[in-house]
Amino acid sequence: MRAVTTELRVRYSETDQMGIVYHAHYLVWFEIGRTEWCRAAGHPYAEMERSGLYIPVTRVEARFRRRSSYDDAVRIVTRMTRLATRGCTFEYEVRNPTDDLLADGATGHVFTDPSGRPVRAPEAIVSALEAFRDS
Amino acid sequence: MRAVTTELRVRYSETDQMGIVYHAHYLVWFEIGRTEWCRAAGHPYAEMERSGLYIPVTRVEARFRRRSSYDDAVRIVTRMTRLATRGCTFEYEVRNPTDDLLADGATGHVFTDPSGRPVRAPEAIVSALEAFRDS
Amino acid sequence: MRAVTTELRVRYSETDQMGIVYHAHYLVWFEIGRTEWCRAAGHPYAEMERSGLYIPVTRVEARFRRRSSYDDAVRIVTRMTRLATRGCTFEYEVRNPTDDLLADGATGHVFTDPSGRPVRAPEAIVSALEAFRDS
Amino acid sequence: MRAVTTELRVRYSETDQMGIVYHAHYLVWFEIGRTEWCRAAGHPYAEMERSGLYIPVTRVEARFRRRSSYDDAVRIVTRMTRLATRGCTFEYEVRNPTDDLLADGATGHVFTDPSGRPVRAPEAIVSALEAFRDS
Repeated sequence: MRAVTTELRVRYSETDQMGIVYHAHYLVWFEIGRTEWCRAAGHPYAEMERSGLYIPVTRVEARFRRRSSYDDAVRIVTRMTRLATRGCTFEYEVRNPTDDLLADGATGHVFTDPSGRPVRAPEAIVSALEAFRDS
Repeated sequence: MRAVTTELRVRYSETDQMGIVYHAHYLVWFEIGRTEWCRAAGHPYAEMERSGLYIPVTRVEARFRRRSSYDDAVRIVTRMTRLATRGCTFEYEVRNPTDDLLADGATGHVFTDPSGRPVRAPEAIVSALEAFRDS
Repeated sequence: MRAVTTELRVRYSETDQMGIVYHAHYLVWFEIGRTEWCRAAGHPYAEMERSGLYIPVTRVEARFRRRSSYDDAVRIVTRMTRLATRGCTFEYEVRNPTDDLLADGATGHVFTDPSGRPVRAPEAIVSALEAFRDS
Repeated sequence: MRAVTTELRVRYSETDQMGIVYHAHYLVWFEIGRTEWCRAAGHPYAEMERSGLYIPVTRVEARFRRRSSYDDAVRIVTRMTRLATRGCTFEYEVRNPTDDLLADGATGHVFTDPSGRPVRAPEAIVSALEAFRDS
């Protein structure tokens, strides 16, 4: 299953008074991971929204295994593990430069119109994402 | 000039690895201050947006004078110091329970339509805000 | 099992371009919920940290069921559903004023010293939290 | 005066319900700009903190001139415009790929020890930053 890797540096604003990354920011990193997965698949999420297809998060789970700190270089490895006409699931690993697992998790999504009503994703998009996922 | 006071508690997520509040969060507190000022003036900002009047921030300045920490109770004191048909200015003081000044600042705003085009605010709203400001 | 309820208003900064609350902010609200649970139990989290006991998040799960928007009043209902000498679990419900469930979830925690090393929580604290939970 | 340019993509989490970047996030981008300026100058900020030198923000000002949106590529151009033994000032421009100015601003800083007490920065660091600034 195709994995897309994105790199980022921990921002000072992402730390908390424990001196480590505040846990909720990992969800923002997951969002960056699926943004880059969609771009790599040829359907940037910004374009999908402009065409009227929204993919809000309905569910999230994450496990925080090791600490990361300000200015650390981290990698987000993203896979789409489920794709249906009604929604999809992404899975994520966050790793440091020596490949230690910092966190992993998953997000569940539904496809909606701009008002939030569930819709089926256009067949052309589903096929394209599927082809990329299996490439 | 009428001042509106709002209280809040510092969130863990608002601290950084210095063990104090990350400076950008004061701008969020300013936003809470003007939300409560508008509500007190009888024109909740959410309603103004629903009616098509937006008041984006065009300018901000802030001075950070003392540190605040997780779980501190802080007060935001908000005044509208300038009001014209095209825009307005708010000023803010952030104080701790013993009335020490933690930070102060100002934000400048223009009135726009939902697409961001500058507009004149409706006369009824300008009058109401003005009456409250001078009350 | 004792539930502690906290109220808050959705901040403008917590919305995203879908016009609703960005999902990661629910984790911040969960944090506020457990801060208030600990305060109600007589052991404010800020004091526990000052005494050297840290309770970092090791796991989170959340389901987002209905949308919430800027300036909505929401309630966070928090329960401690597991307590051991090594860690604990909190569960949360986020509800709107008409009691609709907006989101629910859980966070898992370990007890650590300031450097992040797992420790047993002091017996006095475990007993106090336990007594409150069952009250 | 030496300018350091950093690129980033707007995160979904940085947008608000106006459909544009929430203004406080520009302060986070300024922080990224000065992080990269210090790294380019040979003194990564993370290392300065580890050596006991902190550079908290005491003042900020920013003007928001054009809107930026999710997934936009933006550039932060950072200059150090004042350097003394007690503190320094950075100035920033945020530009889009066609070089339009989105925002500009400045942050004032003091040098402190880990407890927040003002200190003189070590002569070696001041000299190195000064040499880079004028290079």
